[in-house]
Amino acid sequence: MKLNTFFQIFVPKDRKFFPLFETSAENLVRGAILLNKMLLIEDATQREAVIIEIKEVEKAGDDITHEIFDELNSTFITPFDREDIHRLTSTLDNVLDLINSAAQQIKLYKIESIQSEFIQMSELILQATREIETAIRELRNLKKIADIKKSCIRINEIENFADDVYNIAISDLFENEKDAVRLIKIRDILASMEMATDCAEDVSDVIKTIIVKQA
Amino acid sequence: MKLNTFFQIFVPKDRKFFPLFETSAENLVRGAILLNKMLLIEDATQREAVIIEIKEVEKAGDDITHEIFDELNSTFITPFDREDIHRLTSTLDNVLDLINSAAQQIKLYKIESIQSEFIQMSELILQATREIETAIRELRNLKKIADIKKSCIRINEIENFADDVYNIAISDLFENEKDAVRLIKIRDILASMEMATDCAEDVSDVIKTIIVKQA
Amino acid sequence: MKLNTFFQIFVPKDRKFFPLFETSAENLVRGAILLNKMLLIEDATQREAVIIEIKEVEKAGDDITHEIFDELNSTFITPFDREDIHRLTSTLDNVLDLINSAAQQIKLYKIESIQSEFIQMSELILQATREIETAIRELRNLKKIADIKKSCIRINEIENFADDVYNIAISDLFENEKDAVRLIKIRDILASMEMATDCAEDVSDVIKTIIVKQA
Repeated sequence: MKLNTFFQIFVPKDRKFFPLFETSAENLVRGAILLNKMLLIEDATQREAVIIEIKEVEKAGDDITHEIFDELNSTFITPFDREDIHRLTSTLDNVLDLINSAAQQIKLYKIESIQSEFIQMSELILQATREIETAIRELRNLKKIADIKKSCIRINEIENFADDVYNIAISDLFENEKDAVRLIKIRDILASMEMATDCAEDVSDVIKTIIVKQA
Repeated sequence: MKLNTFFQIFVPKDRKFFPLFETSAENLVRGAILLNKMLLIEDATQREAVIIEIKEVEKAGDDITHEIFDELNSTFITPFDREDIHRLTSTLDNVLDLINSAAQQIKLYKIESIQSEFIQMSELILQATREIETAIRELRNLKKIADIKKSCIRINEIENFADDVYNIAISDLFENEKDAVRLIKIRDILASMEMATDCAEDVSDVIKTIIVKQA
Repeated sequence: MKLNTFFQIFVPKDRKFFPLFETSAENLVRGAILLNKMLLIEDATQREAVIIEIKEVEKAGDDITHEIFDELNSTFITPFDREDIHRLTSTLDNVLDLINSAAQQIKLYKIESIQSEFIQMSELILQATREIETAIRELRNLKKIADIKKSCIRINEIENFADDVYNIAISDLFENEKDAVRLIKIRDILASMEMATDCAEDVSDVIKTIIVKQA
C-alpha cells in the first residue's frame, strides 16, 4: 500500500484537486470549440468577437492554473505525486495557450480567407481536448483504467495525424506560396495548432505516468 | 513548523544561496541596462562594443548559474525547496539569455536603424528585472512579503503591457513591411524581447511559490 | 554514505537503467550518423531513403524513452535521483527529435543543394553524440569520472563552436539570400541543428549533476 493510498482512507474524497482538474479540462474544451467555431465563420468582424471570447477562456484557464498551484503549495496530502499535479496543470495550460495563440494570430495577421487546413487542425485539437476531458474525469476513481488508456492512445493518434496534416500543408505552402510574408503568417498559425496537439500529447504522457504509479 | 524552519534555527543565516541569487539578479539588471543603453546608441560601431559587453554579462550569468547548481548538489539543507532553487536559477538564466539573444540579433542581422518598439520593449525588460532584483533581496528575510507580492504583480503587469506592445508592433509590421527579409529580422528581435518578459513572469511565479510555501 | 549507495550494496548491478541509457545513447549516435550521411548524398531520391531511416531511428528512440519512464514509475530503488533519470532521458530524446526535424525539413522544403554549413553542423552534432555515448557508458561504474568530465567539456566546446557556425551562416544568409522563402527554409534547418547541439549540452549538464551528487 502506498502512503498516499494509506492517507486516502482517511481522506476518502479529494475535494479539491479533481474538481479543479475537471474545470481546467472543461475550460480547455471550451477554448477548442471556440477556435473551431471561429474558423468556420466567414465574416472577419464576427470572427473577431469569438477571438475575444477565446482570450477570455485563456484568462479563465490562467486563474484555474494559479488556483491549482496555490492549492498544491498549501496542501500536505495530494491525490497523486505533487510533481505530476504540477506537470498535469502546466501541460493543460500549454494546450490552451497555443489555442489562444493561433486565434490571436488570425487577428494580428489580418487573415481574411481561412485555409481548409486550419479548420482540419482545429477539429483535431478539439478531438484531442475531448479525449483529455474524458481521461481526466476517470482519474478521479481510476475504475476505468482501460478507458483512460484508450483516450491516451487516441490522443497519440490525433497528434500523429496532425503531424501529417501539418507536414503536407507546410510542404504545399513552401512550394506554392510566392508571397513570403503570407507564407510566414500561414506557417505561424499552422505551427501554433500543431504545437497544441504536441502539448495534448504531453498531457496524455502525464496521465499515463499517473496511472502507472497508481497501478 | 516545517523541517526547513527547524534546521534554520541551527543555520540561522544562509551564507551561500541568498548572496548567489542576489548576484544573479544584479547581473541580470546589468544585462537589461546594457540592452537598453545599446539600443539608444545611434552609431552602429559604438553599439557593437556594448553588444560584446552584454555577451560577457551573459557568460557571467552562466558562471553564477553553475555555481548555484554545484552548491545545490553538494548542500544538504537548503533555504527552500531544492526544486524551487533549481527553477529560480533556471528562469533567471533564461531572462538573461533572451536579453543576449536580442542583442546578438541586432548585430547578426546588421540592423542599422533601431525601431522605437525595440527601445520600448527594452525599457519594459529593464523594469521587470529591477522588480525581480527587489523581490529577490526580500526573499532573504521574508519580512516584507507584501513588497515581494507587489513586485510580482508589477512583473505581471509589465508582461501584459509588453504583450500589447509586441502584438501592435507585429500587426503593423505584417501590414506595412513589404521586405520579407527585414520583416523576419524585426520579428525575431521583438520575439526575443517579448519572451524575455515572459521569462521574467516565470521568475515571478517561482518567487510566488516560494513565499506561499514559507507562509 | 548516501542512501542510494547503501542500497547499491544489495543491488550491486543496476540491470535495468544503465542498459537502457546505453541503448538510448547508441540510438542517438545512429541518428547523428544517418543525418551526416544523408547530407553527403548528392541525389535527392537516395537522400530520401536515409531520411526515412532517420524517422525510424527517432521512433525507436521514443520507444526507449517510454521504456525508461515505465521502468522509473515501477522501480523503487534507482541508480541515481529519479528526477535526474527523467531529465537525462528527456534531454537525450530532445537531441534525437531535433536531428529528425532537420532531416524532415530537408525533405519537406524540397532542398536540392545541400549547404556546406549543414554538413559542418551535422559533423558537430555527430561529435557531440559520440561524447554523450562515451560519458553515459562511464556512468555505470563511475570509475573514470575524469573521462566523463572531459566528455562534458568537449560537448560544451562543440556547442560553442556550433553557435559560431550558426551565427556566421545566419549573418551571411540574411545578407546574401534575396529569396525570402529560401531564407526561411535554410534558417529553419540551421536552427534545428543548432538546437540539437544546445540539447546535447543539456544532456551534459544532467550528467554533470549526476556525477557531482555521486562524488
